[in-house]
Order: sequence, then C-alpha cells, then structure tokens
Amino acid sequence: MIITVKKGIPEEEVKKLVHTFEERGFQVNDSQGTDYHILGLIGDTTSLDEKIIQANPLVSEVTRIAAPYKKANRMFHPEDTVVDVAGVKIGGQEKIVVIGGPCSVESREQICEIAKEVKAAGADMLRGGAYKPRTSPYAFQGLETEGIKDMVEARRQTGLPIVSELMDAEHIEEFVEHVDLIQIGARNMQNFSLLKAVGKIQKPILLKRGLSNTIEEWIMSAEYIMAGGNENVILCERGIRTFEKYTRNTLDLSVVPIIKEKTHLPIIIDPSHATGNWKWIESMSLAAIAAGADGLIVEVHNNPEAAWSDGAQSLKPEKFKQVIEKGRMIAQVVGREM
Amino acid sequence: MIITVKKGIPEEEVKKLVHTFEERGFQVNDSQGTDYHILGLIGDTTSLDEKIIQANPLVSEVTRIAAPYKKANRMFHPEDTVVDVAGVKIGGQEKIVVIGGPCSVESREQICEIAKEVKAAGADMLRGGAYKPRTSPYAFQGLETEGIKDMVEARRQTGLPIVSELMDAEHIEEFVEHVDLIQIGARNMQNFSLLKAVGKIQKPILLKRGLSNTIEEWIMSAEYIMAGGNENVILCERGIRTFEKYTRNTLDLSVVPIIKEKTHLPIIIDPSHATGNWKWIESMSLAAIAAGADGLIVEVHNNPEAAWSDGAQSLKPEKFKQVIEKGRMIAQVVGREM
Amino acid sequence: MIITVKKGIPEEEVKKLVHTFEERGFQVNDSQGTDYHILGLIGDTTSLDEKIIQANPLVSEVTRIAAPYKKANRMFHPEDTVVDVAGVKIGGQEKIVVIGGPCSVESREQICEIAKEVKAAGADMLRGGAYKPRTSPYAFQGLETEGIKDMVEARRQTGLPIVSELMDAEHIEEFVEHVDLIQIGARNMQNFSLLKAVGKIQKPILLKRGLSNTIEEWIMSAEYIMAGGNENVILCERGIRTFEKYTRNTLDLSVVPIIKEKTHLPIIIDPSHATGNWKWIESMSLAAIAAGADGLIVEVHNNPEAAWSDGAQSLKPEKFKQVIEKGRMIAQVVGREM
Amino acid sequence: MIITVKKGIPEEEVKKLVHTFEERGFQVNDSQGTDYHILGLIGDTTSLDEKIIQANPLVSEVTRIAAPYKKANRMFHPEDTVVDVAGVKIGGQEKIVVIGGPCSVESREQICEIAKEVKAAGADMLRGGAYKPRTSPYAFQGLETEGIKDMVEARRQTGLPIVSELMDAEHIEEFVEHVDLIQIGARNMQNFSLLKAVGKIQKPILLKRGLSNTIEEWIMSAEYIMAGGNENVILCERGIRTFEKYTRNTLDLSVVPIIKEKTHLPIIIDPSHATGNWKWIESMSLAAIAAGADGLIVEVHNNPEAAWSDGAQSLKPEKFKQVIEKGRMIAQVVGREM
Repeated sequence: MIITVKKGIPEEEVKKLVHTFEERGFQVNDSQGTDYHILGLIGDTTSLDEKIIQANPLVSEVTRIAAPYKKANRMFHPEDTVVDVAGVKIGGQEKIVVIGGPCSVESREQICEIAKEVKAAGADMLRGGAYKPRTSPYAFQGLETEGIKDMVEARRQTGLPIVSELMDAEHIEEFVEHVDLIQIGARNMQNFSLLKAVGKIQKPILLKRGLSNTIEEWIMSAEYIMAGGNENVILCERGIRTFEKYTRNTLDLSVVPIIKEKTHLPIIIDPSHATGNWKWIESMSLAAIAAGADGLIVEVHNNPEAAWSDGAQSLKPEKFKQVIEKGRMIAQVVGREM
Repeated sequence: MIITVKKGIPEEEVKKLVHTFEERGFQVNDSQGTDYHILGLIGDTTSLDEKIIQANPLVSEVTRIAAPYKKANRMFHPEDTVVDVAGVKIGGQEKIVVIGGPCSVESREQICEIAKEVKAAGADMLRGGAYKPRTSPYAFQGLETEGIKDMVEARRQTGLPIVSELMDAEHIEEFVEHVDLIQIGARNMQNFSLLKAVGKIQKPILLKRGLSNTIEEWIMSAEYIMAGGNENVILCERGIRTFEKYTRNTLDLSVVPIIKEKTHLPIIIDPSHATGNWKWIESMSLAAIAAGADGLIVEVHNNPEAAWSDGAQSLKPEKFKQVIEKGRMIAQVVGREM
Repeated sequence: MIITVKKGIPEEEVKKLVHTFEERGFQVNDSQGTDYHILGLIGDTTSLDEKIIQANPLVSEVTRIAAPYKKANRMFHPEDTVVDVAGVKIGGQEKIVVIGGPCSVESREQICEIAKEVKAAGADMLRGGAYKPRTSPYAFQGLETEGIKDMVEARRQTGLPIVSELMDAEHIEEFVEHVDLIQIGARNMQNFSLLKAVGKIQKPILLKRGLSNTIEEWIMSAEYIMAGGNENVILCERGIRTFEKYTRNTLDLSVVPIIKEKTHLPIIIDPSHATGNWKWIESMSLAAIAAGADGLIVEVHNNPEAAWSDGAQSLKPEKFKQVIEKGRMIAQVVGREM
Repeated sequence: MIITVKKGIPEEEVKKLVHTFEERGFQVNDSQGTDYHILGLIGDTTSLDEKIIQANPLVSEVTRIAAPYKKANRMFHPEDTVVDVAGVKIGGQEKIVVIGGPCSVESREQICEIAKEVKAAGADMLRGGAYKPRTSPYAFQGLETEGIKDMVEARRQTGLPIVSELMDAEHIEEFVEHVDLIQIGARNMQNFSLLKAVGKIQKPILLKRGLSNTIEEWIMSAEYIMAGGNENVILCERGIRTFEKYTRNTLDLSVVPIIKEKTHLPIIIDPSHATGNWKWIESMSLAAIAAGADGLIVEVHNNPEAAWSDGAQSLKPEKFKQVIEKGRMIAQVVGREM
C-alpha cells in the first residue's frame, strides 16, 4: 500500500504517522519528493481500510498495490481449484458442467419430469428453487421445505446432484442435509452474516454475482466464505444491472478470463437470468463456452407458458438439448469436453 | 393491468387466456382493435407477476396501471404516518429529526462522549454501529454485543434514543430488547428473510435504500415489512452507486418529494455515506431540509482522523452544531421546525 | 400506441382528446373499462412523442406497441443487409470480417508496417485513427489530415480497405474521398447533426454504441442515418460503462442476437476498447464469433509499449494471428466462414 | 504522477524508463522498497496519458496526484469566476440567476408571451430551444433559424438575455450574432470538435453535464473550451442516467459543493430535465439553492398540455413565480440574493 502525504506537512507529523503503521507491524519505506512524500507499507495490508487512512488529514492519496483477497487469489494458489459436487467435478480442465431445471419447483411431478428431461438432454445437475427471493411479498414465495423434498425425490429418480438457493442461516441444516450445491443468490452476495454461516460448512457453494457489484467485491464475498474455512466456492455470473431495457440484465462474459486470471475458482454462466429471454440463450451459452467458462446453469421448463416464475426465459427440453450439442463442438475448439 | 395480445391469435385462444384470469377472480374487459386485442384486468393485481404473463406466447405487452404496493401506498392511506421512536416522533408535520453519532462504536468512553456532544449540538437520537457490514472479512467487524451495551449506556447518560444496524435474524431479540430504531442496511434492502423477520416485531425500522435499487423496489421492501404487520417504517436515502468517483455515492434528493407523493412514510437523508466527505455534508444537509426531508442522519466523531471506520465522512461536533443551526433556518422557510 | 386515460374524466374531455389524434390522421379505437378508459391509436406512430402525450393531464399511461424505428426494423425488411466496403462484404451469411490496426496512426512507416502485418495475419480491413476524440485538450489529438494520407498509402501498399473515425461534418469531404468505412465514435452516437450529415452520403458507416446508451437508442441513431438516405450502416458494440473497474468498459455480447432479431443490419464487436486489456481479447473475440457476430475490430500494434494511445489493449501481430486462427474454428461450428 | 514498477524488473530496464520521462522534461524521483520501485514524476503531467504509461509492461500502477485540468482548477485561480451574460452576472457572490422559458420555441407569439410571463415572475433570462436534439429523426426538430429570430424578438420585447442550444459548428456565427448564452447540450458534452469551436469565440457558454459523465470528465470538457481561449464557461447539472424509473434522470446536487471546491466556475441547476415532472421541481429548486447553486434553469410553459416537447416537466408561470418567491427566502439563509 502506498500512502501519499500532503505537501508541506511538518516532518514530525509524518514521523508520528509512520509510527502508527510500524506499531501495527508494517515496515514503512519513507521516500520524499519535491512535491510529495510517499510512504510504502510492507506487510499484509488486507486488514487495512483505505478509507480510514484516507480520512487522516495528512494523507492525500492511498493506493493499494496488492489485491485485498488472499484465499481466492491465484497468486498464492496457482493451480485451478476443482470443486466436487456429489461426484460431478467443476473447474480446471474438467468437463464443462451443465446445470438445467426450472426456476421454481412447482410440484413433485413437475420437477421429476423436468429432471428426467434435462438428464436425457445431457445435463449434469438439476436446479430448482424452493425458497424464492421475490421483490413482492404478495408473489409466490416457493414451496419451501416441500420443494426441497421434491428435489430430493427428483435426484433419487435420476441420480442428478441438486442445486437450490439458501436465503437465510435458519435453513442451513436442511440444505446441508439435502442439497448438493448451495446457491447464494445475487441479492444476498453481500449478506455478510449468511456468507459467514456458509463459511462454516463444507458443502460446495454457488456464489452468484450481485446485480451491481464489481468483480473485486464478488471475489471478496468468496473470500468471506473461504476465510471461514469453506474453500468449495464456485462463482456464477448472472448478468448485471445496466440501463438496457431489452434484456433483463446485461451478461458480462469478460468475467470469465478475469476470474481465471485473478482467482483459482471455477466460474459458470447463467444466461437465463442475464437475458431474461429464451430466444437469446443459445447465443449466450455458446459465447460463454468459447470464452472459457467452466459450466452453464440454464432454466429449462417443460411448459414455459404455464411456469409459476420466469417462464419467458426458460428453454424447452428439446431446445436445451440442441444448445448442449452445439456447445460440445465449441468446447472442443477451446480444448474442453462437455 | 392491461395485457396486449399479439396480432392474429385465434379468438378461441384468447378466450382461454381470458378464462384463466377469470378463474383467478379477475374481471376481464376485452376490447379489440384492428391491430391488437386488449385485455383489461380488474381486481387486485398485486400478486400477479408481469414476467409470467409476458412469458405466455399469446401476449405481446403487459402494462401495470396500479402500483404493486398497497400498505405503503399513499392512495390507500392519505394521511402521513408518524413513527414514534421512544418518544421522538418522525414524519408528518413533526419536528425534523436529527440523528448523530459515529459510524462504529469503538468503546464505551468514545460513544458516551460523542453522545453528550451530539446532544449538546441539538441531536434528537444517537447512531452507532455495533455489527458492521464490511466488504472484507479481514476488516474490523464491530464490537457486536459489547457495542450494543455501550450504546445502551450512552442512552442512559443522555436520554437519547439509539439507532443501530441489525444484520441478521439471529440477533433480533437483542435488538428488540435494547435498540430503539432498528436499521436495515443498504446491502440487506433485498434480504427478504430479514425483512420478513422484522415484519413480525413492532419496533420502528429504518430501511436504507439499496446501492442500485429503484424507488419502487425500495417501497416494495418497506411493503414486505408492513405486510408482515410492522407499519413503523422510516425510509432512509443514503446515496446510490453511479459512475461518479469524487463522491462515495450519489445522493438522490429527488426521493424526498417522490416518497411523499407515492407513500405516507417518513423519509430521512444520510449525507455522510452519500458523499463520503465531511466537507460536502453541510451543503447536502441544507438541501435535504429544503427538499422537505423529515430528518437527517449524520456521522459525527470527536476524532475523525482516528476513527476505526469512515472517518473521512464524519463531522466534528462543532461543525455538526453549525449544520443544525443553519438547518433550523431553512426548516422555517419550508414551514417546519427542527 | 395505447393511451390509458385517468379515472373519472368526463366523457366530453376524452372526446376532445380523441379528436386531436383523429385530426393528426390516426384512427382511434376507444374502449372503456370500469377503472380505466383506453384509447388505441392506429397509424404510423413513429413521429409521436410519448412524453408529450404523457404531459396531458387526462393521461395516466402511454404504451408504445410498435418499435419507434422503421428503416432499420427487421419487421419491414426481413432479409439481412449486406454492406459492401470497397469489395469486402459484411453481414448476412458473408464471411466474418476482421478489421485490425492501431488505435492511432503515428507515422507513415508505422501504419504501413502494421498494415502488412495485419494483412499477413488474415485481416480484411485496416483501422487507424487520424482524428482522435480525447478527454483532455492537452493529449495527442491525432495526425489529422496527415494521418488520413498515411492510411491511404497503407491501403495502396496492401489493398486493405481503410476505416477511420470522423469527428465532425467539416471533414466529411476528406473522408468521402479517402476513407472506405467511416466510423462514428461512441461519444458522437447522439451527435444528431453529424448523423444527419453522414445520412446524406453513400459511404458505409460504422456506428459505435454510446457509452451508456440502450440498444433502442443506438438503433434510433442508425435510423437517423438511414432516414437521411444512407442505408449502409454497420453497428459496432465496444462495451458500455458499468461500475466494473477491472475492465475499461463491459462488453455486452447479448447485442448480437438482439440486433439480429430487431434489425437487418450487420453487427461487429470491438473487444479492445471493451476490455482495455490485451490479455482478455482472445477470449472475448471467440465469444463474439460464437454469439453470431458478423465481424471483429481489434487493435493491433507492433510495439504496444511505445504506442501513443491505448497500447495496453493492443495485440501484437503474432497474437492477432492466433486469435484469427482459433476464431475460424469457432466460425465453422456456428456455420460461418472467417 | 506516481508510477509503480513491477517487482523483479532489472535495474537497467527501470533506468531506461526513467530516461524516457526525463527526455520529456520531467524530473523523476526514484525510490525503492523491498516489494516495489516507485517513480515520482515532477512537472506538468496534464499531457500524459495514464493508459499509455500503464501499457508499459514494466509498470504495475499509475496514480495521478494532480488534477488533469489547469484553467478550470480552483488551485491556480482561487477567486470565483463571474460570467457576464449581456449584463446579467453569474457566479461568485452575485445574485442567484433564474432562467425560465419553454423547452422549444413553437411560435413567435408563444415565446413572446412566455417571455413576458417569466419576466413578470422574476426571471433574469429567457430559455428556448430552436435546434432540438431529438432521439428520433421523425420527431419535431425545432423551428431552427425561425426559432432564433423569435427568441430575438422576445428579447426585444422584454429585455431578457436569451439562452439557446447550439448543436454544431455550422451555426456558430448565427449564435454569436443573436444568442447571449450558448448552451452545449448533455449529448454533446464530449463532442470535442464542437468544444474546440466554441473555445475560439468569446460568448458565454452553458455547458451541460453529459448523461453518464463523471464530474472530472465534465470539468475536462470545460477545460477544452477554456484551453481554446474562452473562459466564460458556466456549468449546468441536469441529472444523470441511473436505474431509477420514476424520474427522467437523477439530479446530482452534490456537484454544487464539489464544483465550487475543484473549480472557480459558476454552477447552475436544471431541475426540469432532471426530474421530468413539474410536481417535483419546487422541491429540487429549493434544495439547489440551499446547496449553494449560482442559478436555476427551469422550463416554463403557459400551456404545458399542448407543448410540442417536454410538457410534463414544465411549470406554469404562476407556479414558477411561487418557486422564485420561496427560493428567495432560502437564498437569504445561505447568504445570497435571488
């Protein structure tokens, strides 16, 4: 961390400032120019808050050289992390993973039927929401515990590991017992209490990017989970909020090479929530694979018109199958299997 | 709600669609043009999800006429809501309320001393964070329970009601017992589980606007709390994320007349988190009062340079006092007291 | 266009409103519900301004059914437009086009050398900036007329058609005479005077998306050019402004399927300005091709470290060649050549 | 400017880099830590482009210490600039200026009548658009030259100086001859050719902030005009694009204290384009004055329902008068006249 001290500050004031950092265990490299005075802090600066240092009236500028994350940082962990979700491996040079299923579990019949169809189409895992984050308190909030039980039955019938969203610490035991990959939704990406809670378990976590969060903030949320002791984190880009109105969100595919450069974690793409329109999902799925993603999570519904949530963005099983088939050819070009 | 049906859809298909709405209890007003076919739904549409209707392949456009909120809606509750926080009233034509205090409680001495200073300067309530939402797991996370106890002691010494942020349902009993105004932070504005939890208590809630949320989403979060049974909601604008770099966030003062038009709830302004710089707080505080706000929440620290968080945006007590004095004159012009 | 009239408006007032639309040549379909009164306007509504109608105190809601663009609209022009740039065809099922070259022309030697290298690597056209839009008046503003002459010489030596940015109507004759594809930059996307000026010529136009513009606004800018009489418009996505800091802009690849659905115009992708970092360009280029783009425009520099502008985002010629080679394999999978 | 060199770069490489800066006339202060190597550049760095330096593979970080603007910089010009618009002074401790008038000139009668009404209400200047930047080529584009002539007649009848928007260099002579304050619109804020053109004249310029531009980019656009020789620049905030839908744009009032700290230029506020709704204009106008603005520019129309553009956001003359009257009382509290 480099701290630029304002012009004309008396030498003894600067010495006091240097001393406060030395007391906290940093080595301080003090160098002086004509116009400014620069303090270089050597040591682990992840616990320092730039804003607090910036508040000091002597300080004109604070520049962080090292990234604020350690556990997630590729620099300290050069090999790719491969996360094992009930036998399905994600990350590294493993097979590109495809997760399919409805936005919401609507009934045991519905989820079991879709599970069979996505399996037949080539999916590796089944998704389905039982607890639903909804903007309106009057909207359908999910089947809750019943929905989880229905997912478990669908797994029993197909063998597909199951993915579902956890909304609060209260249900964590239920999820540890029944769910294979626990999703933290976009709106909870900075629910730090929940991040701490899932840091204490060992189940794999699918951490969605927040609607308006930077990649660094997203990695810091992964860092919360990892710092708690759970290193089984998979990142998922699901589109960010922009001014665009044709799409529900704007899919940011540049996260793929960036996440792979900055971290060692697997990164998967959700084209369904990103575009909000089934017609654009094939194009974005193929692009995600070409960009180097480790997986896709796609909404699939056998009767999208009648879906209880997000029907407009769901693929029918046949279309889902086509996407997987084309995806496999793209995967080959970039040296992966799918 | 108005549903525009696509051109060229056979009459019997449209009738089936009309029928599904009639089954759900809506009266459907069907009117046909040359180019389109319009269905007007009459009834309480708050529980309908536009996106689901939009997913129907017959439908080309869905337009919501009524606002999706009821409890918070000025239309159904024309009188201003006045929230009583341990005797301090906020909203309506009540006195404009000033809340002052540090970002974080750092020690019993610190919070008690600042409490006395903000009281002397004219504040009506004391703020202080005990549980802190921090981007980094390595940053100071607050004094937690000790911090709440310190706040309670500061209240004992000054009589000022206390405001503090609740981060999860786990600590709700502690807050109900000790805190007078429970803050839900910007990052938890759409933590729907937490909103439901505070909907079940009767303590007043200070609901901050999310970093990138629309006013309608914010009102819907208030609606969650109110739908649960707790109508003591105060809204707080604290700046939204924009591309601007000089400020920490961009203060959106237009929310003041809009919240007053759309809802009956009190609205207060936090210029400290919005600007992130103490130098701009006076200007924004006076503007907030001129705009018609019901209160201010301002960070005050007796030693900002040494603050453990957000020092750069804290006012010293003397400056805070000046802001209140000028604010009182502005309040008079807009027909309020402060 | 559907106009919802407020509740309780006297019938004669509504009739007057209907009459004003009828006078402007629209057929008005008036249908009444219990709670609202709906006017459906039949006719060409592209010249109507929703905001003006909205201002009418009788009106509660205005919904546009038809897109506000005609010339660019796929609905009225189902076949793909193929633009011919000095013999290189872009759009439809034509070969995916690759445009390479430096951000700025720095000297005749530099541009001629790079031209040869990008040609050898497989590029179809040469890009190079002679007039540069720079945030600072003190930064290098381009070689201007000399730069155009240097581009012309590079074309003479290689046969590659040339692309350069036009910043104002003053230089339009110079560009018509010398440049093969005239670029309108992101910051001028809504410089309506310039759009009108290039609407009067017949040279192909490369219209970049503005930094924070929606796709509809972008199409409307294409419509300006086409309404003036120049239908040779190619759209170029170059990233939009978001909160992300690791990238210069956020590349929105979802524009590819959307532009192809809404319009008949070719769409190409600029991964260099979007990411701002050469390391992420391969990934985004392959993704663009997989998504269905009609071309790529990539910054290539033989000595990026010494470039006068945007060196960080430039590929070296060898790397550019590799990208084209991999791109060709992706193109095959999606049924295109490159 | 501080340049951080990457770890492990051989000393001779660093020396070469230092040498390139010395050749360009900078003094370089080289200081070395254990983990990094820092070069401090002393000299006028406004012409340096951080991005180019960043492209150098030796460099890990570039931090600009000095602001990139000089002419507009308060540091080099501590006194407030007062701009004289045909006798009406704006800035410093001068009277807060009020500019009123319609969005578009619709006819000579209309503009002359409104001119008399805004004058009677207390306005200091008349606004009116003759050349209109419209998103659609099919929308009303303004009365153009006729509109300017109508404005001139309105000035003749009332004595009010006139403000109108210039859209391209082609009409600059017409504006220099007839218009008192030349507006550069938000969409042209980074039309650098137009900025250069108005830098060569001496007429006062009203520079609106771009829809998604930072304050620094806005000041840099003022710097373009001033660097050209025209120091008569007035800045105007008109709201920025955010995700909010209730308002047309989000008014950023924090620009008032920031512009006054960073620059010496006058700053005025346009609450009409910002909110897009006449009901919220009074609140935002009073807030602007309380924040310390040097003026207001407000849309006023004698018949908003029938306005040819932006009627929804126009005040009627009586309401405009009330706003001015309340504004005068706020002005007094902040030590200004209006």
